[in-house]
Amino acid sequence: MQKHTFELELKVRDYECDIQGIVNNAVYQNYLEHTRHEFLIAAGSDFAGLNNEGINPVVYRIEIDYKYSLKSGDDFISVLNFEKQGNLKLIFNQEIYRKQDKKLIVKAKVIVVVLENSKPVKPDFIIEKLENYRKSIQ
Amino acid sequence: MQKHTFELELKVRDYECDIQGIVNNAVYQNYLEHTRHEFLIAAGSDFAGLNNEGINPVVYRIEIDYKYSLKSGDDFISVLNFEKQGNLKLIFNQEIYRKQDKKLIVKAKVIVVVLENSKPVKPDFIIEKLENYRKSIQ
Amino acid sequence: MQKHTFELELKVRDYECDIQGIVNNAVYQNYLEHTRHEFLIAAGSDFAGLNNEGINPVVYRIEIDYKYSLKSGDDFISVLNFEKQGNLKLIFNQEIYRKQDKKLIVKAKVIVVVLENSKPVKPDFIIEKLENYRKSIQ
Amino acid sequence: MQKHTFELELKVRDYECDIQGIVNNAVYQNYLEHTRHEFLIAAGSDFAGLNNEGINPVVYRIEIDYKYSLKSGDDFISVLNFEKQGNLKLIFNQEIYRKQDKKLIVKAKVIVVVLENSKPVKPDFIIEKLENYRKSIQ
Repeated sequence: MQKHTFELELKVRDYECDIQGIVNNAVYQNYLEHTRHEFLIAAGSDFAGLNNEGINPVVYRIEIDYKYSLKSGDDFISVLNFEKQGNLKLIFNQEIYRKQDKKLIVKAKVIVVVLENSKPVKPDFIIEKLENYRKSIQ
Repeated sequence: MQKHTFELELKVRDYECDIQGIVNNAVYQNYLEHTRHEFLIAAGSDFAGLNNEGINPVVYRIEIDYKYSLKSGDDFISVLNFEKQGNLKLIFNQEIYRKQDKKLIVKAKVIVVVLENSKPVKPDFIIEKLENYRKSIQ
Repeated sequence: MQKHTFELELKVRDYECDIQGIVNNAVYQNYLEHTRHEFLIAAGSDFAGLNNEGINPVVYRIEIDYKYSLKSGDDFISVLNFEKQGNLKLIFNQEIYRKQDKKLIVKAKVIVVVLENSKPVKPDFIIEKLENYRKSIQ
Repeated sequence: MQKHTFELELKVRDYECDIQGIVNNAVYQNYLEHTRHEFLIAAGSDFAGLNNEGINPVVYRIEIDYKYSLKSGDDFISVLNFEKQGNLKLIFNQEIYRKQDKKLIVKAKVIVVVLENSKPVKPDFIIEKLENYRKSIQ
């Protein structure tokens, strides 16, 4: 694990596991989303608050590589870095590691655009907060 | 909040909230289940392990009183006490409190029976562990 | 199965099943909620629309008896009847049956109150629609 | 909408919608998975059955483009085509369309590998069934 802008430690819950006894694929998207939202809060914004102001960060595209499975009881660390792409896109590079041995479980690239009244806007006001957070932890 | 046999602190995740902006009713059952399973682990057993041995604790009946709603970002404390009822039933009295002001959110009574090869068995081997845990924290 | 005011046929989805290979307890609450909301639509109202008007039907208490489990691939029928209780409460008596053999899976009593600006109001305008629906199918 | 190997019609359930009033991103993965599993059943196999035999189709990589959102009450059509890639990979090209106007909601590429005792095996025995199904509907 390299250095990351944001890290969140979580634990698998049994209801997130499926017939195969492992965390269901869709649940990782929950983990990834929760990590981004917690990062937003850490950076001084929040998803529900933005939503109330008519500002909706939405996922435009997601790519997830499933490397290994989490099981019942596993602790894991969900990390992210971000970068700007062009004028409108915000890219989150996210990874999930099993805590006990730092094994890479999931690697994801999440492209987010910000909508205001359903139209894409430059996400600079959000990026500024995220960058300030990044500087503050260096 | 009175003294409880087991307490778990958790935080609402945005994907658990619904159109009304509050945690969906069914999600509290996830919280309640996760609390019981974490209690089982704390007491030296675990749900997935029991399942592998063909021993399945199952919910026989649940009663939930919804007192107030959790919202995006809320921290909460999920607590439980337990008692035996008759020969076959194990009762979990569970409550969820909002952390900031100890407001009661949900109160539940969960009746569990233990199945082995699909037939109810006396849950004494589980109860012994739970009781030992209760004594150990007093 | 007796005659019911509303019936909805659904099918178990694999992601709804847990480590035990059966539908997770909390998922039945999803089924029960979806059935009530579909009933509301059939009766000429709808949950999202009410929500937009600041009218929020909320579950006040739920009691669920788990009789038997649904498994991967099972078709099931979710049924409901309703009645008024006092001035403020609306009671849904709901049951879920496995389709192939009409085996009772879950029996639930769901007490709903209707909030307007967070305060309980008489749900007569909703009940009138539900009763008209009931008359229309007799 | 072009011709597809398999189509499944579904309806948004209110508990699948989040604070923004739209279907949560992770839920589309549930829809996509359910469509693949129903296709497997239509082709004469099934996920839970394979799992019991120690054969586990697992998602190796998923790419999802989110084009537009589904809302409460929307009917939608989930479609798929499949192709083989190399010796070990099975690719599902999946799309979700809103029913009323055939608007494209989500486009996904899902790469699946088949594990037997945790090791990748040639998925030819599954592909043969899927191809027979495809021929049967032409």
